[in-house]
Amino acid sequence: MTFQDIFEISTVGRGASEITAEVTRIVRAAKIERGIAHVFAQHTSCSVIITENADPTVRSDLEMLAQRWAPDGDAEYHHDTEGDDDMAAHARSLLAGISVTVPIANGKLLLGTWQGIYLWEHRTHAHNRRIVVTVTG
Amino acid sequence: MTFQDIFEISTVGRGASEITAEVTRIVRAAKIERGIAHVFAQHTSCSVIITENADPTVRSDLEMLAQRWAPDGDAEYHHDTEGDDDMAAHARSLLAGISVTVPIANGKLLLGTWQGIYLWEHRTHAHNRRIVVTVTG
Amino acid sequence: MTFQDIFEISTVGRGASEITAEVTRIVRAAKIERGIAHVFAQHTSCSVIITENADPTVRSDLEMLAQRWAPDGDAEYHHDTEGDDDMAAHARSLLAGISVTVPIANGKLLLGTWQGIYLWEHRTHAHNRRIVVTVTG
Repeated sequence: MTFQDIFEISTVGRGASEITAEVTRIVRAAKIERGIAHVFAQHTSCSVIITENADPTVRSDLEMLAQRWAPDGDAEYHHDTEGDDDMAAHARSLLAGISVTVPIANGKLLLGTWQGIYLWEHRTHAHNRRIVVTVTG
Repeated sequence: MTFQDIFEISTVGRGASEITAEVTRIVRAAKIERGIAHVFAQHTSCSVIITENADPTVRSDLEMLAQRWAPDGDAEYHHDTEGDDDMAAHARSLLAGISVTVPIANGKLLLGTWQGIYLWEHRTHAHNRRIVVTVTG
Repeated sequence: MTFQDIFEISTVGRGASEITAEVTRIVRAAKIERGIAHVFAQHTSCSVIITENADPTVRSDLEMLAQRWAPDGDAEYHHDTEGDDDMAAHARSLLAGISVTVPIANGKLLLGTWQGIYLWEHRTHAHNRRIVVTVTG
């Protein structure tokens, strides 16, 4: 059995927004007892990640590291049509990924206690992001 | 329902080759309306990635960054049996991943407008790469 | 059809432990001929990865690189409640991922010759890690 739904999220620029509640709602609607939930961003300059959901400094420290991994406006970039954050956003998207897959048991996401699902916007300006959630089981 | 097919791709050394068409062909053959497509490389020195499909400088900039993330012939590597690119290739494979999973709706890959699927060869010499595509739904 | 099982692994601190045998045992028990196996850690400071299974220096070189990608006790971290390895572990977990998905054919994992599945502990002290394996097909 497969269930699928799409939701949009408006970001306000760079940073991580928790989407665990949106994914949970779709998994509940799927009424699938056991399986996997796939959460996929239809973009190449943001990420869907799972990370610690307690201390917000985890996400700000990840921002700091991402700036080292793929600096904005690096002198060696050739792709900069949309600004200093353009290529950096594609590279962050590659490193952190654009989808996560989470097991489902008893009709619920089987996340660990400290795991949250986040949409991580890598562009500095606001964007609308489409997230496809597919539940199979 | 599950459908599976394998294809091979001959790379000509380091660089990304688009494989969206090959995956699309297998998804069409699967005749599965709604589900997920899993694209998996049976190797540890190349990657399967999703990235921007319009401007080729995105892929060349990713090459430049990958060289920083895991330099060829780094003095601290112990694993260099197959040359300067050996350990670098394993590290790139870890960072960028060896598989992607894409949602399917109406029997088609639900990719965003700017998303392409690529086989990214990390070795400097030509290799034959086996890609397993599994469609479930 | 979906089969799911959970196992725990006790780590002895930082380093990679092969778990291919544990995952293989669960896939065999699933009796699913064709599909995918999803291997998921319910944590944000370790990783589940696929990498080379022959030469152990691949894993020690990955450790060396991980220390560069996310140094322990970096002066710019704000998240350090649990010590110098705390934020580094979250960042490594993000880069290397917390799950892998492997195709199944003829009831077996369709891994390449040199691919092994590893639990990579990123914390310096011993931890118990819960791994959820979900087989769908």
